Amino acid sequence: MRIYGDSRSGNCLKVQWTADFLGLPSEWIEVDIMSGGSRTPEFLAMNPAGQVPTVVLTDGRPLAQSNAIILHLAEGSALIPEDAYDRAKMLEWMFWEQYSHEPAVAVARFRVAYLGETHEGLDPKLKERTWAALQRLEDGLAHGRPFLVGDTVSLADVALVAYTRLSHEGGFERTGYPRVQAWIGRVEQALGIG
Amino acid sequence: MRIYGDSRSGNCLKVQWTADFLGLPSEWIEVDIMSGGSRTPEFLAMNPAGQVPTVVLTDGRPLAQSNAIILHLAEGSALIPEDAYDRAKMLEWMFWEQYSHEPAVAVARFRVAYLGETHEGLDPKLKERTWAALQRLEDGLAHGRPFLVGDTVSLADVALVAYTRLSHEGGFERTGYPRVQAWIGRVEQALGIG
Repeated sequence: MRIYGDSRSGNCLKVQWTADFLGLPSEWIEVDIMSGGSRTPEFLAMNPAGQVPTVVLTDGRPLAQSNAIILHLAEGSALIPEDAYDRAKMLEWMFWEQYSHEPAVAVARFRVAYLGETHEGLDPKLKERTWAALQRLEDGLAHGRPFLVGDTVSLADVALVAYTRLSHEGGFERTGYPRVQAWIGRVEQALGIG
Repeated sequence: MRIYGDSRSGNCLKVQWTADFLGLPSEWIEVDIMSGGSRTPEFLAMNPAGQVPTVVLTDGRPLAQSNAIILHLAEGSALIPEDAYDRAKMLEWMFWEQYSHEPAVAVARFRVAYLGETHEGLDPKLKERTWAALQRLEDGLAHGRPFLVGDTVSLADVALVAYTRLSHEGGFERTGYPRVQAWIGRVEQALGIG
């Protein structure tokens, strides 16, 4: 499998971590999104949406959307709970990540760390949504279990740790979120990253 | 199953359509999001993210995120392709819907149809992203097959038709997107809606 990704992107790293955890051979091809690397004719032929990550599977077929890719790679593995309700809760977290968490936490981090904006100068609504996403995770971990959907690491953790662990790069320190901070450590250890 | 939803919300209707298609008994409980119906203590106890739709399954357990709900309801049904790659492409469309399509098409429609803004007055970037989402669908249907992932209706069609069929309410007419327009008719017929 070839992974076309930008190594600064949490969405792209999710795919690499999942492949490595599952022992799937992969080749990383760096795509610089800042200089239009995901908008070339060659790239758009693989993914007309022009987004990273995009993978080319071993049979040559392309696949996009980080969470769709990791769900495909991890089918039948321990990263997807066997229980139907747990699996549904994992998907709930993954769709929430793309709809409510990533567009806040990742966008704020991108603006500060890559566009050179200041944390103080960020749109107040973006800041409010970022803090709310961290709080939602803190509350979601109040169940007293080590991972989001239970006792073992799942794709919900893979998807949500990717940008949560980088929130400070956007000026969002996690000192007020002790459960989140401890969970990041557990997920990094389980995945062998960090 | 109880479906807590706002009947003006395409995300909520996805769940009702899926339940009806599968012959699953359901009770619709109207939640007026404009007057804070998804922010009451009772609602937040079911879904701390305060978002509709939220369902309470027959065993009393809650589940949120429209696409996670329909994936759970439809497990093992004809709405989910048996082929692993087709299933992955269905998920790719569903995550793209929540990340790139809904935040453009649904938000533009909400601003015009419910907040009383004019199409002309919408943020130019929002308009650009909405037209781009319609074009992406038009291109995605150039494969010559009747539905997004092949010859039968899948959850990709359920998820994407929900707001695409309402784009004109935000002033985005679909006359320039003939494949999209024909596809909407096929999906509505397959689902028995419209």
